[in-house]
Amino acid sequence: MVPTLIDGDIVVPESNVINEYLDERFPDSPLMPGDRFGRAKVRLWTKQLDEDIHDACIAILSFGIAFRHQYLARGEAGMRMLEQIPSIIKRERRRDVIDKGLDSLHFRIAVARMELLLTEMEQALTQHAWLVGADYTIADAAFTPYLARLDHLNILGMTEGRPQVADWYRRIKARPSFKDAIVRWENADYLTLMRSRGDEAWPKVQEIVCSLRAQAVASAA
Amino acid sequence: MVPTLIDGDIVVPESNVINEYLDERFPDSPLMPGDRFGRAKVRLWTKQLDEDIHDACIAILSFGIAFRHQYLARGEAGMRMLEQIPSIIKRERRRDVIDKGLDSLHFRIAVARMELLLTEMEQALTQHAWLVGADYTIADAAFTPYLARLDHLNILGMTEGRPQVADWYRRIKARPSFKDAIVRWENADYLTLMRSRGDEAWPKVQEIVCSLRAQAVASAA
Repeated sequence: MVPTLIDGDIVVPESNVINEYLDERFPDSPLMPGDRFGRAKVRLWTKQLDEDIHDACIAILSFGIAFRHQYLARGEAGMRMLEQIPSIIKRERRRDVIDKGLDSLHFRIAVARMELLLTEMEQALTQHAWLVGADYTIADAAFTPYLARLDHLNILGMTEGRPQVADWYRRIKARPSFKDAIVRWENADYLTLMRSRGDEAWPKVQEIVCSLRAQAVASAA
Repeated sequence: MVPTLIDGDIVVPESNVINEYLDERFPDSPLMPGDRFGRAKVRLWTKQLDEDIHDACIAILSFGIAFRHQYLARGEAGMRMLEQIPSIIKRERRRDVIDKGLDSLHFRIAVARMELLLTEMEQALTQHAWLVGADYTIADAAFTPYLARLDHLNILGMTEGRPQVADWYRRIKARPSFKDAIVRWENADYLTLMRSRGDEAWPKVQEIVCSLRAQAVASAA
């Protein structure tokens, strides 16, 4: 399911492409910086979502913590759903995450990817109020659902020791758009599943985070 | 090694980000369409490079056919180079491609990805002269090195039955920029390695392509 925008007879798929399209469509409320270097910086942030952050956060963390339990509960039917994933790489990765959950190597790699992201966000937000500068941009909007997902999975503790990221997320949640774009689309059953399974998962996630941070300190020494 | 542009005191990494930056930097010779839907279409093409085409073409096809032989010839030293790849996923994938070459499952998946790309290029080029419309854009420029790589690996036979792609590549090569941007950077030793190993690999690549096309016909029937 690729997000798709329909604008008259124009169809635009893919979140990052849609975001820039909308920004050009509504020039009176720009969410791209006015200078070309600022625009390049926005794109350096957002391209990471397509490269691996979306997969790490949605396909792996969310499955490893919460949605695998739906597959496991369905037994044979769950396995048939799995067989329908066309890419063999994604199918076998999903199978591993369903089988092993938090102990899947893919899960550890996904936590590491989110750790790297949060580290880079903290660095950027120490320099300026929003990811790319003094103003809120498409980059801040684009990363909102991923921090919201950590929140929903009750693993927002990953931002511990990262006060600027925690503050950024507080400011994001205080914007009226957060209610319109995130809260009103929340599914109560999914939220319950994510929160309760996330509570169970947190000690293990925290253990992975601690070991990754210890590694980072050791390799910097 | 991420490609990086230095413009005065501004540093811009990443090919796709650099291309849009340069287009904004030199507005007198635009390579982005004048309309926002055209720009969205360019971005739908180019984001694929970051998602998987670069990896499929450079990290997998080129290694499976040619560069694995350099690693194998180096023995222990080659294996130590392999251990230096930080990502475990990329390291183990590279190891599999070095060990198994054309018989690696990753190699087959990479050929399939290039097949899908060439199919979509043929569809687009049947509708208009260049990938996004009547004019040459950043999308055409961005895919040039990847078709050139198929050419260098002597597996451009993959464009067989795709006359529009073959014609597009002929027109690309006739542009003066092809000499400046591709030919003058070619390394004679690498070219020799790629061409000779590519000749050896072609029957196997062709066999994979034939089986993929047979599958596509069967699943469409």
